[in-house]
Amino acid sequence: MTIKNVEVGHYSIPLPVVLSDSMHGDMASFELMTARILDDEGREGLGYTYTLGAGARAIHSVMQSDMAPFLMDRDETRIEEIWHGLWWKLHYAGRGGLVIHALSAIDIALWDLLGKRTSLPLWRLLGGADPKVKAYAGGIDLMFSLDDLLAQTDQNLSKGFRAIKMKVGRDNLHEDVERIKTMRNHLGIDFPLMADANMRWTVDDAIRAARAFREFDLVWLEEPTIPEDFQGHRRILSEGEVPISAGENLHTLFDFQHMLEANGVSYIEPDVSNCGGITVWMKVAKLAEARNLPVTSHGVHDIHVHLLGAIPNASYLEVHGFGLERFIEEPLRIQDGYATANERSGHGISFDWKALEEYRIS
Amino acid sequence: MTIKNVEVGHYSIPLPVVLSDSMHGDMASFELMTARILDDEGREGLGYTYTLGAGARAIHSVMQSDMAPFLMDRDETRIEEIWHGLWWKLHYAGRGGLVIHALSAIDIALWDLLGKRTSLPLWRLLGGADPKVKAYAGGIDLMFSLDDLLAQTDQNLSKGFRAIKMKVGRDNLHEDVERIKTMRNHLGIDFPLMADANMRWTVDDAIRAARAFREFDLVWLEEPTIPEDFQGHRRILSEGEVPISAGENLHTLFDFQHMLEANGVSYIEPDVSNCGGITVWMKVAKLAEARNLPVTSHGVHDIHVHLLGAIPNASYLEVHGFGLERFIEEPLRIQDGYATANERSGHGISFDWKALEEYRIS
Repeated sequence: MTIKNVEVGHYSIPLPVVLSDSMHGDMASFELMTARILDDEGREGLGYTYTLGAGARAIHSVMQSDMAPFLMDRDETRIEEIWHGLWWKLHYAGRGGLVIHALSAIDIALWDLLGKRTSLPLWRLLGGADPKVKAYAGGIDLMFSLDDLLAQTDQNLSKGFRAIKMKVGRDNLHEDVERIKTMRNHLGIDFPLMADANMRWTVDDAIRAARAFREFDLVWLEEPTIPEDFQGHRRILSEGEVPISAGENLHTLFDFQHMLEANGVSYIEPDVSNCGGITVWMKVAKLAEARNLPVTSHGVHDIHVHLLGAIPNASYLEVHGFGLERFIEEPLRIQDGYATANERSGHGISFDWKALEEYRIS
Repeated sequence: MTIKNVEVGHYSIPLPVVLSDSMHGDMASFELMTARILDDEGREGLGYTYTLGAGARAIHSVMQSDMAPFLMDRDETRIEEIWHGLWWKLHYAGRGGLVIHALSAIDIALWDLLGKRTSLPLWRLLGGADPKVKAYAGGIDLMFSLDDLLAQTDQNLSKGFRAIKMKVGRDNLHEDVERIKTMRNHLGIDFPLMADANMRWTVDDAIRAARAFREFDLVWLEEPTIPEDFQGHRRILSEGEVPISAGENLHTLFDFQHMLEANGVSYIEPDVSNCGGITVWMKVAKLAEARNLPVTSHGVHDIHVHLLGAIPNASYLEVHGFGLERFIEEPLRIQDGYATANERSGHGISFDWKALEEYRIS
């Protein structure tokens, strides 16, 4: 039960197509940082995190220079102790920001290792609710023409999706309204449709937008304003009269506590690759459960399907088109709107390291 | 007015003696990351930040790989635009944590450059209140024996200090009480004495400690609990009945806003090297002024003396014994309890790069 090696990798992976949203601009590639933790019995746990470029080398550096040496020869099953040891070791320059991305990857690898040790898939190890999880296609399509938006939508329908999210936050609100209206007309009145503003607006701009979107019956409006404004989210939710989701830019258990305490969201959306890993993701899910709130996810769907499958208050799984599935041996499939967590031990994800090698940075 | 080169350095500097506090353990060295920004007219702005080791390589990496390329050929006087450009470029993996340390160093260098361009010292450029600032010696002495604590105190008195801060947060509260009592008896009833718990306690432990310290008339009790618990600070302040300071672990303007909004502190303590630089430090000072609160500082006293000298609501300047003065050409001097901001352009700090070279990591 002792950690004997930690191998850290950094890869730059081109996206299948250039993607855009309201605050991140054009994205042509993403960077994947991997942690492979080996124990004294020959087991390997795999964790990973990603960014859209900026900060990637520094995440690799924190994992390699600060975290890997700390892990050596420790008891791999004392995950809480390791987690807090790393939190405090890196506290002065840590907590949020990219240190939490690095810690997330390490924590995921430790949970994967525990799954392998116990021969249980994560969704069973972490609670065992229902491995069949509703999924939606997360479009990163702010600058797509209406034709391209509908073409992408039809592709998503043919892939098995029965729920879709689109981007909003264009320069003029009437453009957003027109795009949502076109999508609603195309999909029909009962189809679950979400919209994501990626923090573009002030609180009052967001309330104005939410009111303009109200007639289109969105499942939720995501990240209407900056993640730090907890009370602002509360106002948008209560005055805009559209359900609100947020969480991909909340990076500590305390951030989530502040947002939930403020009654700022209808759906909480932790990202296991940037909230501190499975350890924190599961705590956030319990905070939400105690408030009778559903949990959704952001990115890394191959892992999140297990976490949503473990909890009783699961909402939709987000599925991104980042193209990581090219490097995963048995990627997640969508059938009739659902994804199902696998029965392999741990998260059950194996990377094709040979294929990844071409994209290696360090 | 155009940036032509950014030179980033990383040094590991041994401390004069091993230091300890309640949550960071023993510290034998600190790591200094420097940013030298050169413009097309041959001027150089100097910025720096530091950590106690962990995360240092990653701070260097963010400055070198993500920030330096962004700065090239930009107008050096558009500091707000550059600041927000870097904030959003690194937003997904940024905001708090070590990205803000890197941004702080860059921002300090830009303000230094503006000081040099305008031939004004920062304390005049930023407001011009009073260059003569009350200073205190910040002892990092939790594990010192009582004799060593008093010997350090006498040394500080002979160096010109007329205010002193000591560490608290030992395993048993009665040890803290005994140490404070010994210091109070040694220094006399009117001597300004502060105590710093470095986040050791829960809220109720902190209230218990504050009440036990009440009779010793501390100027403030610093960082009684974790920085994320804004409402907890409010309770400690109002129920413990000792003034509270915090801020060295608040890393964004929003963190400070939350703490001030919660009425959690009597003194706010931003650190220019980890709050986002001079740009954010000055905004925090204005938030505090609007609430009639005094501002104190943490670390990097050679820069903070200018910032406290610029504002009308300055409280004490903290002076740390990290030994960086060995590498500064004209280090700050303390006279009769005061430090005075210099009249050179910018912050007026010049490093002895030759002497630093021995400690260079990259």
